[in-house]
Formats: sequence, C-alpha cells, structure tokens
Amino acid sequence: MDIKLTILLDLLGTFAFAISGIRLASGKQIDWFGAYIIGLVTAIGGGTLRDLLLDLTPFWILDSHYFLITGAALLVTLVFKEKLFKLGSTLFLFDTIGLGLFTIVGITKSVDAGLPFWVCIVMGTITGSVGGVTRDVLLNQVPLLFRKDIYALACVAGGGIYFICYYINLPTGVTETIAALTVIIIRLIAVKFHIHLPLLQPIGKKKQLIK
Amino acid sequence: MDIKLTILLDLLGTFAFAISGIRLASGKQIDWFGAYIIGLVTAIGGGTLRDLLLDLTPFWILDSHYFLITGAALLVTLVFKEKLFKLGSTLFLFDTIGLGLFTIVGITKSVDAGLPFWVCIVMGTITGSVGGVTRDVLLNQVPLLFRKDIYALACVAGGGIYFICYYINLPTGVTETIAALTVIIIRLIAVKFHIHLPLLQPIGKKKQLIK
Amino acid sequence: MDIKLTILLDLLGTFAFAISGIRLASGKQIDWFGAYIIGLVTAIGGGTLRDLLLDLTPFWILDSHYFLITGAALLVTLVFKEKLFKLGSTLFLFDTIGLGLFTIVGITKSVDAGLPFWVCIVMGTITGSVGGVTRDVLLNQVPLLFRKDIYALACVAGGGIYFICYYINLPTGVTETIAALTVIIIRLIAVKFHIHLPLLQPIGKKKQLIK
Repeated sequence: MDIKLTILLDLLGTFAFAISGIRLASGKQIDWFGAYIIGLVTAIGGGTLRDLLLDLTPFWILDSHYFLITGAALLVTLVFKEKLFKLGSTLFLFDTIGLGLFTIVGITKSVDAGLPFWVCIVMGTITGSVGGVTRDVLLNQVPLLFRKDIYALACVAGGGIYFICYYINLPTGVTETIAALTVIIIRLIAVKFHIHLPLLQPIGKKKQLIK
Repeated sequence: MDIKLTILLDLLGTFAFAISGIRLASGKQIDWFGAYIIGLVTAIGGGTLRDLLLDLTPFWILDSHYFLITGAALLVTLVFKEKLFKLGSTLFLFDTIGLGLFTIVGITKSVDAGLPFWVCIVMGTITGSVGGVTRDVLLNQVPLLFRKDIYALACVAGGGIYFICYYINLPTGVTETIAALTVIIIRLIAVKFHIHLPLLQPIGKKKQLIK
Repeated sequence: MDIKLTILLDLLGTFAFAISGIRLASGKQIDWFGAYIIGLVTAIGGGTLRDLLLDLTPFWILDSHYFLITGAALLVTLVFKEKLFKLGSTLFLFDTIGLGLFTIVGITKSVDAGLPFWVCIVMGTITGSVGGVTRDVLLNQVPLLFRKDIYALACVAGGGIYFICYYINLPTGVTETIAALTVIIIRLIAVKFHIHLPLLQPIGKKKQLIK
C-alpha cells in the first residue's frame, strides 16, 4: 500500500479502536484517566502481545503517536459526546478499517520474522483482536469477540487470502491491499446481514468433574 | 519417560485441556470459533506465559499440532456432545494427566535454562495452571484454581518431589515419571475424597482504605 | 536513596501489596493457597509486565524474597486477622509507599535501558499499578484503578517530577526521593480529601455498532 495511506489508516484505526474502548468504559463509574487507559489498551493491546510473542520491542515504545491519538480520542469524546456517535456508522467503518489494517501489519511483521504462514495468520488475528478482548476483560465482560458477529474469523480469512496472493507472487502492495479489503468486506457483510457462526449449545454441564 | 509415551500424553493432555475450555464455553452465547479460541487458550496459555518469562520462543510457534488437536477437540465435542461426557471420568483423567505432564515439561524447560529449583517449580505450576486461569478470566468467572480442590498445590508438590529425586541422582526418566505421578495422584485423591485447603474467611472488609 | 532504606521500603511495599491482594481475596470462597497466589500477583505483577516489555529477566527470578514476603503476609493475615486491620491506616501508608517506590524502580530500570522519558513514565506507572489491576481481574471486578481516587495519575505525576529533577541535574538519590514523595503525597492528599477525576458519563450507548 501507499506509505502515506498506510500511515493515515493506521492513525484512523488507532483512533477508532481508542474511541471504542472509551465509549464502552463510559457510564461505568470510570474516571477520565481510567477511560484513557482502557482506550489505549484497546488500541495497542493486540500489537503489544504480538511483539512479546515475536520477541520484538513493543511497537509503541518506538513511536509516541499511539499515546497522543488516544489522548485526542478522549478529548474528542468529551467535547462532542453524542454528536460523535451520530457518526456511528462512520466510526464503525474506521474500526473495521483498523481491524483490516492491524491484521495485515501483524502478518507482515511475522513474515519479516521468517515464521511459517499459519503462525503469521495467528499473529495477524492477535494483532487485530486482542486489544478488544483485553478491553472487555478489564470492563468485566465476556469478550464480544467470542459472542458476536464475525470478527476473529475475518482476520483469519484475510490472512488466508494474503498467503494465496503471496504464493502466486502478486506484488506486496497488491497482496496487502487485497488481504486488508477481505477482512473489511467480510466484517461489513457479516454485520450488515447479521451473519454469525452457530452458538455452542450447553454440553455436559451437570457433571462438573473436569476443571 | 519414553519419548513416544511423552508425546502421546502431551497430545492427550492438550486434547483434554482443550475439551475443558470448550465445554466451559458452551451454553454461554459463545459461537464455535469463540469456543475454539477458548479451548486453545486453555491448552497453550500456561506454556506460553512460561516461555515469555523464560525469554524462549513460544512452543506452539514451532509445532502446529496444538492448533490441530484443539480443532479436533471442537469437532469431537460438536459430533459426540453428551456422549462424550458420559466418558466424564475418563476425560477428567486426561485433564489430570495433562496437568502432571505439563507441570513436568515446565520444570524440565526451566532446569535446561539453568534456573534455581524454586523458579523451576514456579514455572512448572504456571505451565500446568495458567491456561485454566485464563479460560476462567475470559469466561468472566473467578478462576476455579483459587476456589476448588487441590490444583496448583499438586503442581508444587510434584515439583518438590522432582527435585528430591533430582538431588539423589535418580535417572531423568525416573525422576520425571515419579514427579508427574505425584501431581496426578495428589489431584485424584483430593477430588475423590473432597480434600481441600481451608477457605480464607472475610477479613477487615469494612475499612476499605487499602486498595 | 540510601540502599538499605530502598531495600527496606521495597520489602514493606511488597508486603503491603501482598496484604492488599490477600485481603481482597478473603471471604470469596478462595482457599489459602489461592489467596497466596493473588497476593503474589498483586505484589509482582506490575514489575513482571515491565520486565517482559523491556525484554529483561523478570526481577523475581533473581531473588526469592518476593515469594517469601508474600508467604509472611499470608501468615500474618491468618494469625492476626482483624487486629491487623486495626492498623488500617498504617497498611494504607505501606501500600502508598510501595506505590511510590515501585514507580521509581520502574522508571530507573527504563532509564538504564536507554528509553525516552515518556516510555520511562509509562513503565513506572505499569510497575506501580498493573499488580492491582491483575488482582481485580482475577477476582472478577472492574479494576479499582479505573474507578477510584488518584492512583495511576499519581505515578504519572511522580514520573514527570522525576524528569524535571533529572534534566536540572539533581543528584540521582535526590531525584528519586523527590519523585517517590510526589507519588506518595499526591495519593495521600487525594484519598484524605476525596479528590478524584470526573467520571466519564454514558455516551452513545444505544447504538451498539462499534465493537
């Protein structure tokens, strides 16, 4: 992808993830600084776990803009409040674009580290989704990831498409664009048409022998 | 231990841990892929934290069979459902064998890393029990580890026995077998005879000065 | 700071953090060993995450006294029970001293690793506060950090003062003392006069488009 466009989308994705954390924290007896931290963790949590697993320096140590953008997200939330969320579908679009981009960033970093393709897909999925899982755990909820829509699965599908493009030798920029679009489009379609996987029905709950 | 037997028990342990995660996730508005992820985290969470603490490459990056076995566990759960859990006590046995084996794997890796004996026991306990703790946190429950039976303590006891055997120079295979059996037998006896540690009674709850 | 004084305060801080974990675990159907683990995680959780992020060996691997002090904290809790908490304000003071000291330890380690000043402040804050966050997550509560008093913000303020002293070339000992006192005094004042940040009011909760 065009470098400038990538940076712009990364900023937008970070902003949207931070907003999603801050909004979920609102109305829960959480103060402004607590909301800032939850927004931050939502935005950088996935990439941080990926870098720990890959034994790389956490990406945000090298670049302060993730902390600044989260600050901007808090400020915008406090100033615009409800008005911001009349833009609901716009923000949802950012969040989804962020998901697509973060997934591809995770895959690219893992490819650079020389890992097998399936590990790269796992790392892409972690990058895209662990921030939201951590946010939900901190807010004491069962993570949305496990419950709704197609989220992690969109990352996995995008990762699969990435490696199909990769092995037929498409140029890197094209491969990344197609893979990111795959994540984004799958998620948009799933939300729009309420497509989701079957739920796992209760199984063997009476016998509590296994821990 | 015999290498082939070790691998077989590792597979069985992974399978049993994955099943325990998937079953606990069932009936909680969690979809199939969410259940897969929870099964996976239960099976590989402990070893992953151990490898991060020891600054080693996470073990599952080098070997895809943990992801495949978790997939098999989900498939088996979906196909056999209740029938699977008529095997309740068999599965409990796998889970306990997995605990014993994972604990010894954690200790062995730490001994190889040249750590003092008490750190090795801590790492063994982490390997055996952190997966289950993460599973419970993700499902928004106070971890069973803190509440029921003898679990982490069985790992610690097994670790103690390991180093007694180690210092009297028993062969490695014998040491590992005795230690793993210690974990397994303590846990089996504790569950069978409902042995557990005393609960910590409420203390000083009225004054909420300390945070 | 004087080395002996630093070690003494580190011990006291560890003890107070462990006590705070054990007390919060009490009366929740958690057994003694579970309470020990929660006390331990409260005391060492922050420093452990910091060391993982900085790619250092976790500090407690090199020194068993953190595990021993947590054991002492459990013993003291079991023996003295309510009597201990008649010392409520003394313990609160330990906890606050621990916060101040742990924050400065985190900053110093990060300065030694050659990191930019704002990363050092983040690491100091993580060292001081992540243990308490983990404790609350394990006990299935929304972390107090997000809800009450001035806690993480006191760490950030102490970090800011640290670097002001650092850039005007005060001696290291003086810089560390002033910064630790800043954390401690801000927290004491905030708790005594019930000063806290504004809460984040509910925002846009009806539209649940963003995840």
